[in-house]
Amino acid sequence: MRDSRRVSVLKIDGNRSQAADDDVVIEEPLEVRVNGDSVSVTMRTPGDDFDLAVGLLWTEGIIRSSAEIGTIAYCPDEEQPELKNIVNVVLVDNTRKIESSRRFWSNSSCGLCGKATLDAIRQSCQPISSSIQVSSELLQSIPSRLRQAQSNFERTGGIHAVALFDVEGMLLVLREDIGRHNAVDKVLGAALMRGLPLPETVMMVSGRLGFEIAQKAVVAGIPVVASISAASSLAIELATSFGMTAIGFLRGRTMNVYSHPERIRAES
Amino acid sequence: MRDSRRVSVLKIDGNRSQAADDDVVIEEPLEVRVNGDSVSVTMRTPGDDFDLAVGLLWTEGIIRSSAEIGTIAYCPDEEQPELKNIVNVVLVDNTRKIESSRRFWSNSSCGLCGKATLDAIRQSCQPISSSIQVSSELLQSIPSRLRQAQSNFERTGGIHAVALFDVEGMLLVLREDIGRHNAVDKVLGAALMRGLPLPETVMMVSGRLGFEIAQKAVVAGIPVVASISAASSLAIELATSFGMTAIGFLRGRTMNVYSHPERIRAES
Repeated sequence: MRDSRRVSVLKIDGNRSQAADDDVVIEEPLEVRVNGDSVSVTMRTPGDDFDLAVGLLWTEGIIRSSAEIGTIAYCPDEEQPELKNIVNVVLVDNTRKIESSRRFWSNSSCGLCGKATLDAIRQSCQPISSSIQVSSELLQSIPSRLRQAQSNFERTGGIHAVALFDVEGMLLVLREDIGRHNAVDKVLGAALMRGLPLPETVMMVSGRLGFEIAQKAVVAGIPVVASISAASSLAIELATSFGMTAIGFLRGRTMNVYSHPERIRAES
Repeated sequence: MRDSRRVSVLKIDGNRSQAADDDVVIEEPLEVRVNGDSVSVTMRTPGDDFDLAVGLLWTEGIIRSSAEIGTIAYCPDEEQPELKNIVNVVLVDNTRKIESSRRFWSNSSCGLCGKATLDAIRQSCQPISSSIQVSSELLQSIPSRLRQAQSNFERTGGIHAVALFDVEGMLLVLREDIGRHNAVDKVLGAALMRGLPLPETVMMVSGRLGFEIAQKAVVAGIPVVASISAASSLAIELATSFGMTAIGFLRGRTMNVYSHPERIRAES
């Protein structure tokens, strides 16, 4: 994984300065193609690109299961053949064309208002009916485990991490990226390809829990999503509406449960 | 500014839980239209929507100066007339149509590789030649001033802030949003409409300094951009190439200057 790069930097402390080296997180564009046609360009940290491509196609509603995927491969970039920045996903239905209105669903084609977006999600997603129970103690232990498992944050300070845990607290998959949404797509793509039992998992995100993160979790059928940071109003509305437990400010012993607290075991 | 909303929450501390109220940051979609045609939908925190629309059109390369703008107004949403989530910008050239390849420049149409993106920026932007000098002491004082001026972060913990300062450290404009990119667009839109002397300013961002933030600053001709968090490899490349001073981890007495340190006055 090409995830960080050493650069020259002027470090200033008070009014003293000195030249030094520093590791910075790598950000490069990834173009995702389906059956040879470009459907998305995202700025991402290289690594786990096939997971990212699969996760993006899934959470954008272009594929519904791993059985639709034929092969995945890097394409050479004619101008920069040394870079692996184009991934082509050939579907089993290798003549299928993705109509342009399905490209960039969550950004440009998400509809003209929140209602249209919610309606589109309703058409493609089931409410989450998972009856898993998670103890507050287990949730409280997750942020430190996420930090321990992260390879890059300590070094570059610029990476988001997203992980799936089972209800016993076992780490199932962890992915990192400069973009919060990419990290989620990498995790969900890996989970889809491995056939992980997503209705029995907890997803932890290191960044904020905004609408698009919540939307991706709903598409994947994940019953509990927790963030060490804040949740937005629209993420909470979506979670409430689709039966997902949304947790924010999971730090130390404390957390805020914004929706469907019935999955959390804690004394009252 | 409708920026936060009170919600019911289950607060858990250790293994004790209790119902409470909490303020969460509002996230709603904003559709931006030009001469009546939709060009963008972004998830934003309501408030300063006209600044956001102008900043977005400017940094996406659709307009080049405030003189191109005729009128700006909210359009009623037919399904939800109580919401102000559609802004229409009527250009002086009110028959101009925005070709679809110019829509969502930074996302879907940013080109197939970083090189294409950089080439596109080179065609539309000048290198930054500003010869301003900024003292390290002034930079070190900015993060705490940003926090003091922020109205929402303390309450919701979910808002990004972006501000412009002059070289004496005076706050010129501050805007907040759940999205880092939106907060930058709000600041730049306000600056464009007010005619602020951007080549003599320092921009401070509360989030990471990624490629898209750096790109917007280059379009606006801002010579110094500082972040309290990390800068990405591609943001540093862009800043180096376009003559912009990029600063990361501006915290307390320390900072990392990643490019063009000649604008910073500090002892060696």
